[in-house]
Amino acid sequence: MPKGIKNEVAVIGMGCTKFGELWNRTAEELIVEAFQEAIADAGIEKKDIDAAWFGNCVDEVNVGKSAIRLPMTLKLPFIPVTRVENFCATGSEAFRGACYAVASGAADIALALGCEKLKDTGYGGLPDLSLLMGIDNRLLFPNITAPGAFAQLATAYFSHYGLSPEAGKRVLAHISSKSHHNGSLNPKAHLRTEVSVETIMKAPIIAWPLGLFDCCGVSDGAAAAIVCRAGCAKEYRKDPVYVKALQIAVTSGMESAHQNWDGVHVEPTVRAGIAAYKEAGIDKPREQISMLEVHDCFSITELVTYEDLQLSSSGGAPRDVESGFYDLHGKIPCNPSGGLKSFGHPIGATGLRMVYEMYKQLQGKAEKRQLNDPRLGLTHNLGGFPSMCVVSVNIVGNEL
Amino acid sequence: MPKGIKNEVAVIGMGCTKFGELWNRTAEELIVEAFQEAIADAGIEKKDIDAAWFGNCVDEVNVGKSAIRLPMTLKLPFIPVTRVENFCATGSEAFRGACYAVASGAADIALALGCEKLKDTGYGGLPDLSLLMGIDNRLLFPNITAPGAFAQLATAYFSHYGLSPEAGKRVLAHISSKSHHNGSLNPKAHLRTEVSVETIMKAPIIAWPLGLFDCCGVSDGAAAAIVCRAGCAKEYRKDPVYVKALQIAVTSGMESAHQNWDGVHVEPTVRAGIAAYKEAGIDKPREQISMLEVHDCFSITELVTYEDLQLSSSGGAPRDVESGFYDLHGKIPCNPSGGLKSFGHPIGATGLRMVYEMYKQLQGKAEKRQLNDPRLGLTHNLGGFPSMCVVSVNIVGNEL
Repeated sequence: MPKGIKNEVAVIGMGCTKFGELWNRTAEELIVEAFQEAIADAGIEKKDIDAAWFGNCVDEVNVGKSAIRLPMTLKLPFIPVTRVENFCATGSEAFRGACYAVASGAADIALALGCEKLKDTGYGGLPDLSLLMGIDNRLLFPNITAPGAFAQLATAYFSHYGLSPEAGKRVLAHISSKSHHNGSLNPKAHLRTEVSVETIMKAPIIAWPLGLFDCCGVSDGAAAAIVCRAGCAKEYRKDPVYVKALQIAVTSGMESAHQNWDGVHVEPTVRAGIAAYKEAGIDKPREQISMLEVHDCFSITELVTYEDLQLSSSGGAPRDVESGFYDLHGKIPCNPSGGLKSFGHPIGATGLRMVYEMYKQLQGKAEKRQLNDPRLGLTHNLGGFPSMCVVSVNIVGNEL
Repeated sequence: MPKGIKNEVAVIGMGCTKFGELWNRTAEELIVEAFQEAIADAGIEKKDIDAAWFGNCVDEVNVGKSAIRLPMTLKLPFIPVTRVENFCATGSEAFRGACYAVASGAADIALALGCEKLKDTGYGGLPDLSLLMGIDNRLLFPNITAPGAFAQLATAYFSHYGLSPEAGKRVLAHISSKSHHNGSLNPKAHLRTEVSVETIMKAPIIAWPLGLFDCCGVSDGAAAAIVCRAGCAKEYRKDPVYVKALQIAVTSGMESAHQNWDGVHVEPTVRAGIAAYKEAGIDKPREQISMLEVHDCFSITELVTYEDLQLSSSGGAPRDVESGFYDLHGKIPCNPSGGLKSFGHPIGATGLRMVYEMYKQLQGKAEKRQLNDPRLGLTHNLGGFPSMCVVSVNIVGNEL
C-alpha cells in the first residue's frame, strides 16, 4: 500500500464549468473556461505552469487521443502534458498525477484538467461500457448494462439486510431526493430541480429496483485544479486547501465476484478508504470527516459507499440515511454539490469536480450550499462495475 | 520547464518480450513475460510493488480501457494502477509516472509496464492515426499518412541542405542499414536481417523519398521496469541504473508548422533535449552522451533527431552518419538494439523497450551488441507528426 504524500501538496486554484447537455459548446470552450477560472482563482499566469495532466476517458471524437488537445487549446508552450485514463475515476487520476509531480519536486506548479463531452459521442453506457472494457471483459459481463450491474448490488443489499422492496426503494429515494435538493442550490449543476421521495419511487424502472431518479445522467463538462507544494501555497492565497490523502485501489480481477462475495460491498472502496484514512491520520472517520462527495452513479452506490468508507456500520446506512445524517445539514453532508445525480458524469471531469466542491466548501465559498465550518472533505470516484473496478479516495483539508 | 528529479530514482529491474507478429500470443502472455523478467531481475516479489503505471495507446480490442488489464492479468492485489497514453510516447509516460510516484515518496517500489498488440487490431497507421487525433486534427491533416508526414521532413531536409535525392537517400539508407545490422544481433528484435545500403536504396517507395526500409514495421510486444528511490537501490542489486533526466515537451499546436518553420527540425525534440541536458547537468552532449535509443519511426526522424539533440551540428548529421559516428562501434552508437527499424513499434511498449536497451548496456549485459564502457544513455520517444507532437527525452546512467 503506497504511503502517500500527506500535507506535501496544496490546491491553490480551481475551476469548473456548468455541466449539462452542452450541444452548442465545444470541448475547447469547456477546457478554456475551467482553466481560466482556475488560474484566475490561483492568481497565476499560464507561463507559471510547469506541467499538466489531462483526464479524458471516452471522448476521442472531440479531443482525440493523447494529451495534445490540452496544450493546443490553451497554447501551453512545450510543457509536459500527460493524458491519464482510468474508467470513471479518470478525473481523480489527473489530480493525482499533478500532485505527484509537485511532491516529487519535478514541477513547482502543475495543472490537472479533465474534460468530457459525452453527448456528442452518443455515449449512453451501452454498448460503450462493455466495448471499453475489452474482449475479456465483454465475456465476463455479457449483455449487462451499468444500471443492470449496479441494480444487482441493490437487490443483494435488500436481501442481505432484510429490507422489503418498498423500504429499500424508500431509502434509495431519500438519497436521490437529498442530492436533487443540493443540486437545486448549485448554479453549476446540470439538473436543478427538487424531486420528492414519492416522485422518485413512482418513476419508471430502469433496472429493478433502480428507477429513473436512481441513475445519474449523461452530461458534458470540465474541471481543473492548480497545485503547488504545501510550503509555497500561502504565497498564492490565504486559504489554500491541503492534500491529506490520495489513494487508489484497483481490483485484481474477480475477488468481489468470488462465490464468497457478500454482494453488498465494493472491495476497492474498502481498500482505498483504509489506505486514505491511514495516510491522513484519521482513526475515527465518522467523527473526523466533515463532508463527502461520493460517486453516486446510482443511488445504491452511494448507500454501500457509506458503509465501505466506515462512516455507517454494516447494514446501518439505511438508518443513517433516513435520519438525515448525510443530508445537507446533517452530521456528514454527502454530495452537497448535488453529486453525479445533479451534475451527470462527464467522465474525465467528475473526479476534479468533486474536489472543486470540497475546495469551495473548505474556503467558505459554497454559497447557498455552504456547510458549517468543514475541516476535512473526502472524495470517492469509482470506475467500472461493483465486482471489478478502480476506486479513488482523496481527502483534503484547510489546515496543515 | 520542470526541474526534474535527477538521481532520486533508480531502475532495479527490467523485462522485455521478443517483439514481432505475435498472432499466437495474447496481450496477457506478453504482460506476464515482461513482468516476470522484471521482478526476477530486481529480485523482488509481486507483493513488494506499491503502485503501477500501464502504458497502452490504441489496443483497446485486447486490453480494454483503463488500467484494469494489468492487475487482472498479474493479480496485483488492490494496488493503484494508472493507465497513461500519449501517442507513440506512451511507454515513456508509464516510466515517468512510476518514477514520480517513487520520487514523491508515495511509493517505495513502482512498476511501469507497456504493452501493445497492434497486429490483432489491424492497426496500420491509416486511417487509425488521423482518427486517433480527433476531429480537429483530421481537419489539420487531411489525407496524410504517417509516412507521408515524415517524408515531407526528408524532402525539406534535402532541399534545405542541398542534398541530391541520390545523396540524401544514401544517408537515410546508411541509418536503416546500421539499425538492421544492430537488430540482427538482438534476439528480442522482430526483424533480424542484415540489409545493405544498396537494397534499401532500390526498395519500393512508400512516400517519396522514403522507401520500404526507411519505415519501421508494425509489431506486438511488452516491456517493463521496476523503480525505487536511488538511496535504496543497492539493497536490490549491485548495478542499478539511475534516472538522470525525465523530460517531455508537447507542442502547443502549430508552432512547427508555422510559416517560419524551416521544416528540418522537430521543435519538441529540441525543447525536451535542452530540458533533459539541464536536468542531468550535461553541457556538452556530443562529448558526454555514450549512446542513444531514438524514435526511428522513419530513417529521416533519426537524422533530424541527431541535430535536434545537439549531437550533430545543423546540416552536419549526414556527414556524421556516413563517417560511422552513430554506428554500433562509433562515437555515439544510436539504436544499438536495432531501433524501431528492427523492433517495430508496439506503441505502449516502445519507450520502455528503449530504456531496457540502455539499462542492459549500462550493466554490460547487451551480449553481441555490448558497447565499450557506456556511462550515459539517452532515450528519445516521439508521438505524433513532425509539426505537432509529444517528445520524451530520458537520460539514465550507471553512477550517482
